Amino acid sequence: MMKKGIGHYNIGDSFEDFMLIKEATKGVASNGKPFLTLILRDVTGEIDAKLWDASKDDEETFIAEQIIKLKGEVNQFRGRAQLKIFSIRPANPADGVQVSDFIEKAPVKKEVLMEKITEAIFEMQNPSIQRIVRAFVTKYQEALLTYPAASKNHHEYVSGLAHHIVSMLSIAKELHILYPKLNKDLLYAGIILHDLGKLKELSGVVSTTYTLEGKLLGHISMMVEEIGQIAKELQVEGEEVVILQHLVLSHHGKAEWGSPKPPLVREAEVLHLIDLIDAKMNILNRALDKVNPGEFTARLFAMDNRSFYKPLFEEN
Amino acid sequence: MMKKGIGHYNIGDSFEDFMLIKEATKGVASNGKPFLTLILRDVTGEIDAKLWDASKDDEETFIAEQIIKLKGEVNQFRGRAQLKIFSIRPANPADGVQVSDFIEKAPVKKEVLMEKITEAIFEMQNPSIQRIVRAFVTKYQEALLTYPAASKNHHEYVSGLAHHIVSMLSIAKELHILYPKLNKDLLYAGIILHDLGKLKELSGVVSTTYTLEGKLLGHISMMVEEIGQIAKELQVEGEEVVILQHLVLSHHGKAEWGSPKPPLVREAEVLHLIDLIDAKMNILNRALDKVNPGEFTARLFAMDNRSFYKPLFEEN
Amino acid sequence: MMKKGIGHYNIGDSFEDFMLIKEATKGVASNGKPFLTLILRDVTGEIDAKLWDASKDDEETFIAEQIIKLKGEVNQFRGRAQLKIFSIRPANPADGVQVSDFIEKAPVKKEVLMEKITEAIFEMQNPSIQRIVRAFVTKYQEALLTYPAASKNHHEYVSGLAHHIVSMLSIAKELHILYPKLNKDLLYAGIILHDLGKLKELSGVVSTTYTLEGKLLGHISMMVEEIGQIAKELQVEGEEVVILQHLVLSHHGKAEWGSPKPPLVREAEVLHLIDLIDAKMNILNRALDKVNPGEFTARLFAMDNRSFYKPLFEEN
Amino acid sequence: MMKKGIGHYNIGDSFEDFMLIKEATKGVASNGKPFLTLILRDVTGEIDAKLWDASKDDEETFIAEQIIKLKGEVNQFRGRAQLKIFSIRPANPADGVQVSDFIEKAPVKKEVLMEKITEAIFEMQNPSIQRIVRAFVTKYQEALLTYPAASKNHHEYVSGLAHHIVSMLSIAKELHILYPKLNKDLLYAGIILHDLGKLKELSGVVSTTYTLEGKLLGHISMMVEEIGQIAKELQVEGEEVVILQHLVLSHHGKAEWGSPKPPLVREAEVLHLIDLIDAKMNILNRALDKVNPGEFTARLFAMDNRSFYKPLFEEN
Amino acid sequence: MMKKGIGHYNIGDSFEDFMLIKEATKGVASNGKPFLTLILRDVTGEIDAKLWDASKDDEETFIAEQIIKLKGEVNQFRGRAQLKIFSIRPANPADGVQVSDFIEKAPVKKEVLMEKITEAIFEMQNPSIQRIVRAFVTKYQEALLTYPAASKNHHEYVSGLAHHIVSMLSIAKELHILYPKLNKDLLYAGIILHDLGKLKELSGVVSTTYTLEGKLLGHISMMVEEIGQIAKELQVEGEEVVILQHLVLSHHGKAEWGSPKPPLVREAEVLHLIDLIDAKMNILNRALDKVNPGEFTARLFAMDNRSFYKPLFEEN
Amino acid sequence: MMKKGIGHYNIGDSFEDFMLIKEATKGVASNGKPFLTLILRDVTGEIDAKLWDASKDDEETFIAEQIIKLKGEVNQFRGRAQLKIFSIRPANPADGVQVSDFIEKAPVKKEVLMEKITEAIFEMQNPSIQRIVRAFVTKYQEALLTYPAASKNHHEYVSGLAHHIVSMLSIAKELHILYPKLNKDLLYAGIILHDLGKLKELSGVVSTTYTLEGKLLGHISMMVEEIGQIAKELQVEGEEVVILQHLVLSHHGKAEWGSPKPPLVREAEVLHLIDLIDAKMNILNRALDKVNPGEFTARLFAMDNRSFYKPLFEEN
Repeated sequence: MMKKGIGHYNIGDSFEDFMLIKEATKGVASNGKPFLTLILRDVTGEIDAKLWDASKDDEETFIAEQIIKLKGEVNQFRGRAQLKIFSIRPANPADGVQVSDFIEKAPVKKEVLMEKITEAIFEMQNPSIQRIVRAFVTKYQEALLTYPAASKNHHEYVSGLAHHIVSMLSIAKELHILYPKLNKDLLYAGIILHDLGKLKELSGVVSTTYTLEGKLLGHISMMVEEIGQIAKELQVEGEEVVILQHLVLSHHGKAEWGSPKPPLVREAEVLHLIDLIDAKMNILNRALDKVNPGEFTARLFAMDNRSFYKPLFEEN
Repeated sequence: MMKKGIGHYNIGDSFEDFMLIKEATKGVASNGKPFLTLILRDVTGEIDAKLWDASKDDEETFIAEQIIKLKGEVNQFRGRAQLKIFSIRPANPADGVQVSDFIEKAPVKKEVLMEKITEAIFEMQNPSIQRIVRAFVTKYQEALLTYPAASKNHHEYVSGLAHHIVSMLSIAKELHILYPKLNKDLLYAGIILHDLGKLKELSGVVSTTYTLEGKLLGHISMMVEEIGQIAKELQVEGEEVVILQHLVLSHHGKAEWGSPKPPLVREAEVLHLIDLIDAKMNILNRALDKVNPGEFTARLFAMDNRSFYKPLFEEN
Repeated sequence: MMKKGIGHYNIGDSFEDFMLIKEATKGVASNGKPFLTLILRDVTGEIDAKLWDASKDDEETFIAEQIIKLKGEVNQFRGRAQLKIFSIRPANPADGVQVSDFIEKAPVKKEVLMEKITEAIFEMQNPSIQRIVRAFVTKYQEALLTYPAASKNHHEYVSGLAHHIVSMLSIAKELHILYPKLNKDLLYAGIILHDLGKLKELSGVVSTTYTLEGKLLGHISMMVEEIGQIAKELQVEGEEVVILQHLVLSHHGKAEWGSPKPPLVREAEVLHLIDLIDAKMNILNRALDKVNPGEFTARLFAMDNRSFYKPLFEEN
Repeated sequence: MMKKGIGHYNIGDSFEDFMLIKEATKGVASNGKPFLTLILRDVTGEIDAKLWDASKDDEETFIAEQIIKLKGEVNQFRGRAQLKIFSIRPANPADGVQVSDFIEKAPVKKEVLMEKITEAIFEMQNPSIQRIVRAFVTKYQEALLTYPAASKNHHEYVSGLAHHIVSMLSIAKELHILYPKLNKDLLYAGIILHDLGKLKELSGVVSTTYTLEGKLLGHISMMVEEIGQIAKELQVEGEEVVILQHLVLSHHGKAEWGSPKPPLVREAEVLHLIDLIDAKMNILNRALDKVNPGEFTARLFAMDNRSFYKPLFEEN
Repeated sequence: MMKKGIGHYNIGDSFEDFMLIKEATKGVASNGKPFLTLILRDVTGEIDAKLWDASKDDEETFIAEQIIKLKGEVNQFRGRAQLKIFSIRPANPADGVQVSDFIEKAPVKKEVLMEKITEAIFEMQNPSIQRIVRAFVTKYQEALLTYPAASKNHHEYVSGLAHHIVSMLSIAKELHILYPKLNKDLLYAGIILHDLGKLKELSGVVSTTYTLEGKLLGHISMMVEEIGQIAKELQVEGEEVVILQHLVLSHHGKAEWGSPKPPLVREAEVLHLIDLIDAKMNILNRALDKVNPGEFTARLFAMDNRSFYKPLFEEN
Repeated sequence: MMKKGIGHYNIGDSFEDFMLIKEATKGVASNGKPFLTLILRDVTGEIDAKLWDASKDDEETFIAEQIIKLKGEVNQFRGRAQLKIFSIRPANPADGVQVSDFIEKAPVKKEVLMEKITEAIFEMQNPSIQRIVRAFVTKYQEALLTYPAASKNHHEYVSGLAHHIVSMLSIAKELHILYPKLNKDLLYAGIILHDLGKLKELSGVVSTTYTLEGKLLGHISMMVEEIGQIAKELQVEGEEVVILQHLVLSHHGKAEWGSPKPPLVREAEVLHLIDLIDAKMNILNRALDKVNPGEFTARLFAMDNRSFYKPLFEEN
């Protein structure tokens, strides 16, 4: 049986299901008549659809955040899949569907994510580091548990940021066992703090865009500043503060990638590598899930535009 | 008559004058005997000298910050000038020389520099911008008037930072007349603040090195953080704060050059260009001053390693 | 009240005004019927429009350089604005409009531009430099006062080249006051000559394209050659000639940007920087004029594809 | 008490201990007399020493692989440490020292390393992959357990290659638990095979150089070829062979780094990242071991020439 | 008279001739009706055509590899030529046309190409080199004489690979006369072997794509492996084998271009240069053939996207 | 028997022969005594030597362009060969040696080189091209036959430029036979003219340096200018002039390599490739001549710093 969700359809398949309108734009066709371009989504992906000869009524009905029931066929247009609409109607209460059914979420529950983060903070032995990290997690707890880790590319789903942090903490725990000289406090703190600036850089959980501060300063600079502020408020002093700031500042690894200083502390280097691994695994696993053994994935922008191959001897 | 100062000597010239020891390092010659490598300076430049067969006494006498009287000859060693020492002695009170005679200073007095900066702040019309800039100048006034603008490359002399700021303010004033849409408040504020982080990045005025914070965070990130702090203390809010932070953040122009965001506000772009002009003019004028018409300068590291030509029809 | 001109319209606005056809291309629609793609312009910008079901008559009427009166609405097509045509007719003498009303011009009159250039030449003290520059200005006076500075990017309007030269001369004048060691003659001469090669590289003032010589040699090489020729004709000898050639040759700053030699003379470096400033100010001012405070401009190709922000506290 | 070994000495320290001569080169001093430049090593590092006025006898005694007893002092020469020799003599049987005492070895015994590798092969479930890997390990067992992983940079010590493999296997094991979709067989096989070509690329365990084949083809190409050969000999067919070849081929990550194809299979990407982590941890741990808290390491060539900081709050 | 073939038509020309369908894709028009996008070819080039309102029957008739007779007109669509179809029918036996009439072939016959290659092998004096090359040519003779040299860019026609080899052999012969120190055996062998890996990398002669092995390993690595295998089978030993492998491995010249080692043997460097010359001449001659004197060619992707000029004084 | 000439000596060899002093520089040894650093040459290469304890007399005798007779031994200093001097004396008339015996010359006589160039001009059919080229050859005949092609890297010997031209003409002749569409006139003209600017860029045949014009404009720009001048003097008009200028302008191939325009005419591209081949063959042949089979050459700066291998199966 075919897996459910638009991400698993092929060109030519018939389609009948509920979807969420992500974006609706009005256009004028070459015959002079208005039409709507809809971007539709469910938890497995997105697809475009054109609603030709759209009436005024249609324009008011089929808007962003509206759930719809649609019958159609998956066609190809300029090399991309497009849903040909046979019939479309807005969902009604009787359908028993809700917006959150169509938005991708982390595969781990918020409570579990929070527990893991709390546990990591609890394990810390350096009180300065521990107090700063705890202050951040307390201050931003709600957003931290709902925000995506990025507006696209990797962990771009509800609770994506917390999911990313928790996966990274697991890797760090194991690396600390293999390389016991690693300072676990620093590593855990760097992981929890490294992307918290995104809570200010990104506008929110749904239809995520960049804030003005995000565009002009970036999440890294904002976070470096806030670590300084929180340390001041907590009256924490000592080298720990500047080292934590350095971990955040350098975690993109290179000036060209947005870190004005490269990692200059062992744990900063390791933080950068763990971040890479978890982001890449997230992208690869989700892309390979959508293809069969013997096939290549679509080109993955955040992986230098490579297409990855799923060997024939892999299980589907 | 030859111009005074080591910067004007040629290979083969005899030399007899006072100089300041900038660095003294002990070595062992191929004959097994100890010697001292001295880096000597006056206001026009630096030169190396070897003191062969150095006694224990010599090692204790000829140390950094000591003024000496030296007779010798300018020789060449591996393509660089080197002073051959005929005789050397430490200066004594009767000589009437002091350390500050040997250290390069800005060609404009501190008082004048301070006046110009104050005047620029006075001209500002936006109170948020004005208050933040004034707070910084008040807080750092003393260091601001003595620090160099860099540990090498350009304006690397006493009061160099303030001299650099004041020259940039003059250019900004004229550009504002030519392009009246430029926001003068922003431009002046960007100029005064852009390099203040160096007061924390560099260790001091003499034998300048980098602080730990300077190495791990850099002057740009430190300054962005402090603008946020000062704004908070002054209870200044509004877009002005983030724009000022952006001006400082982006003033190196490109990620590869240390600015995690490129200029995205008109005055940020202009700030970057004015900074380039004044730094380059400072380097070029000082290098061309040391050569005669018809000659090329030494290779200038901060100018992509180019040698510049002084045309024959220039006055010396 | 809304500012006049197509550059100030938003998606959804009704439009009724005269425009100039810049380009008209015939196409065939998916229903097999011919249509015209028109590129329309006024002094504030350009916009595309489609004339569907175009008759033979339409094809002959709506051609490049024709002024038309048009009623329509600004729509969006593939992310770009497009004029939907409700009615269209060619302008007639009674309308009292002429082609030059629709072509952007420098904001300063030709006579004033010429006066400023003449004044700069008059100020020169080195007779060799002065004679060469005067010969060029005399030879090319007419084209110099009408050509754009480029076919796109900056100062791409009637008299754009002279406007660019005169703005640069103003900056140079002020820099010379701040840095009196700059050789004013060289700087003025470099500014006046640096882009004159474009008079041969570009085909003309309207619908500017590149000449064969322009494509195969480029304006820099052509100008270097012509300085040599004119000097020969004037029997001017001495280092001035090669230095002027070097100023032109190096004014793009780097080999990758089209200068086979980088600036190796102080005034060559400054010429390059002044050129950058004036070109960038021209691009930025015109782009920011089209947006409101709190908005970003379109991406600016010649500014590394950046969008610039106009702060909320700027006047519109 | 000072840690034992030349890697822990500072400029000015007296030294008296046994060392191994790694290289001895004859030179002629400026006084016309012959001298020997010795590169000396123990398990903690290397240092240069000059033996002045060397006799014919000295030249024959003090040669590579000879153990010597030396008294001297650590001096500085052109910014590098150099041993000043007070007295030197060859070791004799009574001293009870042997060459292997002076050569760095992996901190884990050969037997343990072999056991871990065998265990990984044992866990594999795909018989094609398992047979190929087992054939390689059987064929090269002896060299595999003694070779360094590189001639310099990381794991450049006896059994370095096996140590590197075993560390990587541990990381892989944990990543497989965190990301269960990873194909463990492929990952283990890639790790064991990825650098085996170095057994042919490098000349041996001591004073390692490159073979002709190593210089002209490189270890990656040689290994890809040999996987094909071994598969043929074992009559293994199917996609596993080409995937294993791809893992080896792509493990440097980019064409510029020596991989003609970038990773295009999930496990190839992960192999590249695990390789990076273990190599970097090896370099960082060994460099940081040599400095005290509050200090920076020497510049590390294989880490983009960065110096790393050891925070004050780390234990020594 | 106009030259025959679609490559010589201009916008607006009427067209009536046979063509081969290279690709046929189904689409849905904005009016909801199906249409076919056809890519048509003859020996001079390719062109797109749309068959509107395509019936089920049309979909089954107009498929890849079908020859058709078409009347129409060359139009322009989004800046590219497109055939507007007036009438279309499949070819029938009576038309006397066949698929091979529409596929570009090398301008030299297979027999002649084979003869030249055989002759080069015959001239070799080193028996090891000769035996390896002969074994390859015997093993792959058939494919070698039909494959293109690439799927696009240069020599992308039937027998293109052999044609490329034979042209390169001619250049090598002459260079050997001018530079007699060149080892002719090596050079000839390198030329014959360098691209043979493409026989495994590319899927075949018509509608050429990449094989899995080709995508994951590339023709260079596959060929290096096979040289090793064949040498083993022939029991050829000695440095010749590794040098031949190096010639193939390095013939792209740089790591970024796919050669993990750059040329390190004289003949490897020359092989790379001869490859460049012949590939570029093939591209340039075919592109310039399609334009008239005084015109520029289309942008040539494989020539850094340059357009080349055909001088007016050239014959057409 | 060992080949004659310093280029064939190995470390440890005794040496007794005449050499020419290329450069003599005075230095002061660590014992305070003056010494001379001599750069000595014969036709096979150069070597350094130190003359310790040099007297005033020595300083006046052993100067550049002086021939000397020297006994000594080839030693190694900092990884480079150095002649240890046992005895040295200036040559006297009775020795029968002259300066030209020590300067490398092209292996072909001037007369032959001139004849080949004349012949190529004679073959040209386009009178405009022929007249321009003939005018240049007539004007510069003497220098053309004596200048090197470069101050270092390739053909850096007497008549090197003419030798380079004649070799390139031979390659062009053969390529024209293989690719008859090449315009032979253009190709020959481009070859003869491409580097003539070096006659003005370089100071002369012996101890070649750069002229001011060479440094500020470069040989390419100077030559483009002079082609324009000569064409004007000869009253040659038409596209030939600009095409010839383009050939010279573009012959370095890329902006980064000094060509402000890349080749945009077929013969310009071929000219660039032929130039590469002949320059590289000249470097490689001369470097490989100095090593034995089984050895690598020194690193070759102009070949991207590669060392080339001479296979064991090559004759020496």
